[in-house]
Amino acid sequence: MGKVIVVGIGPGNYENMTIRADLALQCCDVIVGYHVYVDLVRERYPDKEFLTTPMTQEAKRCQMALDKAKEGHTVAMVCSGDSGIYGMAALIYELRGEENTPSVEVIPGLTAACSGASLLGAPLTHDFAIISLSDRLTRWETIEARLEAAAQADLSMVLYNPASKGRPDHLRNACEILLRRLPEDRICGVCRNIGREGESTTVLTLGQLRTAQMDMFCTVFIGNGMTRLIDGKMVTPRGYRDV
Amino acid sequence: MGKVIVVGIGPGNYENMTIRADLALQCCDVIVGYHVYVDLVRERYPDKEFLTTPMTQEAKRCQMALDKAKEGHTVAMVCSGDSGIYGMAALIYELRGEENTPSVEVIPGLTAACSGASLLGAPLTHDFAIISLSDRLTRWETIEARLEAAAQADLSMVLYNPASKGRPDHLRNACEILLRRLPEDRICGVCRNIGREGESTTVLTLGQLRTAQMDMFCTVFIGNGMTRLIDGKMVTPRGYRDV
Repeated sequence: MGKVIVVGIGPGNYENMTIRADLALQCCDVIVGYHVYVDLVRERYPDKEFLTTPMTQEAKRCQMALDKAKEGHTVAMVCSGDSGIYGMAALIYELRGEENTPSVEVIPGLTAACSGASLLGAPLTHDFAIISLSDRLTRWETIEARLEAAAQADLSMVLYNPASKGRPDHLRNACEILLRRLPEDRICGVCRNIGREGESTTVLTLGQLRTAQMDMFCTVFIGNGMTRLIDGKMVTPRGYRDV
Repeated sequence: MGKVIVVGIGPGNYENMTIRADLALQCCDVIVGYHVYVDLVRERYPDKEFLTTPMTQEAKRCQMALDKAKEGHTVAMVCSGDSGIYGMAALIYELRGEENTPSVEVIPGLTAACSGASLLGAPLTHDFAIISLSDRLTRWETIEARLEAAAQADLSMVLYNPASKGRPDHLRNACEILLRRLPEDRICGVCRNIGREGESTTVLTLGQLRTAQMDMFCTVFIGNGMTRLIDGKMVTPRGYRDV
């Protein structure tokens, strides 16, 4: 009987992959995924069968992985970042249902909150929320309520999917909501193409973030009330220094 | 001139470390850290100088790393989980201040939210908050407000430091706060000793969590309103299936 291994490959480069993810990709015989993510691993693991689907066909992609496993293959379902956080692990369990075959293994990977934070400095040393601004699968009112709640409780935030072609204004709308409670000069950061060609970071204020250029390869960090810049790095202290 | 590399080593086992973290530990000549974390890597990287401090001496530990780097050494400051999330990266930047020597590199690692979630199933497929229940450095009122806000906004939650000898009742108190808004049967999970000897998981309700046995090696997951059990796994759907 085959197996589906849901593999979080991290931001994209080999070095930020876990040893376990690397071993899984070496050992599998089929690699399934969104074509952009599959292209990130194709060269390093060449002797595999590759199956890809376009962006919005998540259910089809996962069913393909389960079907291949049922045929007896060891299938790696690759996800960028983590396999769970906005990844395919839940959908694989949902589609498999109450049967316990094929077997499923979930291998965690570095989500953009971790990999992006390390580029900006240390913005997530204290409590924080991860919120996606994509309203493809979530009502905008729900997203808005989550942003409000996080701002109210002084949580740092990481915003995934801050923009795409279909929703160029989401980040500006999110900033307007946050600015009801947070000051214009709240320190924020943007990472683009983490672990990939063209990797870059920007540190800016929440006021500036409102009109910043954004695309689907960006991850946005909002500091909490203690966040400050130290030598250009975005740093949220936890208080260890004051003990 | 030396260098401080703040290395997130993940939950503890070699396989869940990134390739980059492994390379950094191979290349450094001094490894500094809390003694429990240093013991996790001591055997695999034997030809190093090891410097450890007890639990609450974070500032002393980071200063030791900076001093060694100033002497010309390549120093790996090991953190369990991620190097940033409740880790030492911020404190290293704080103590170094506006000087830009010694140079600092931050290597991200798998935080318990990612590694623990992969053991429970896929509880973090949608927006969530990470909140520490330790009030050593944070006022309990702040923690309480964050729990309330997360519950109100239907965020899944990961609770770090749910208990220790000095604060055996924190998780029960947190559950009481959550139960003001969330139902008794909200699905929750607990991971213990992730990636280490004695690794275990438990799935239970929020009502049961209130009186569950807990220690400092546990990480707690609270589902959102969509979380359900599928074949014993804690699964939070994102809605891909319904598209």
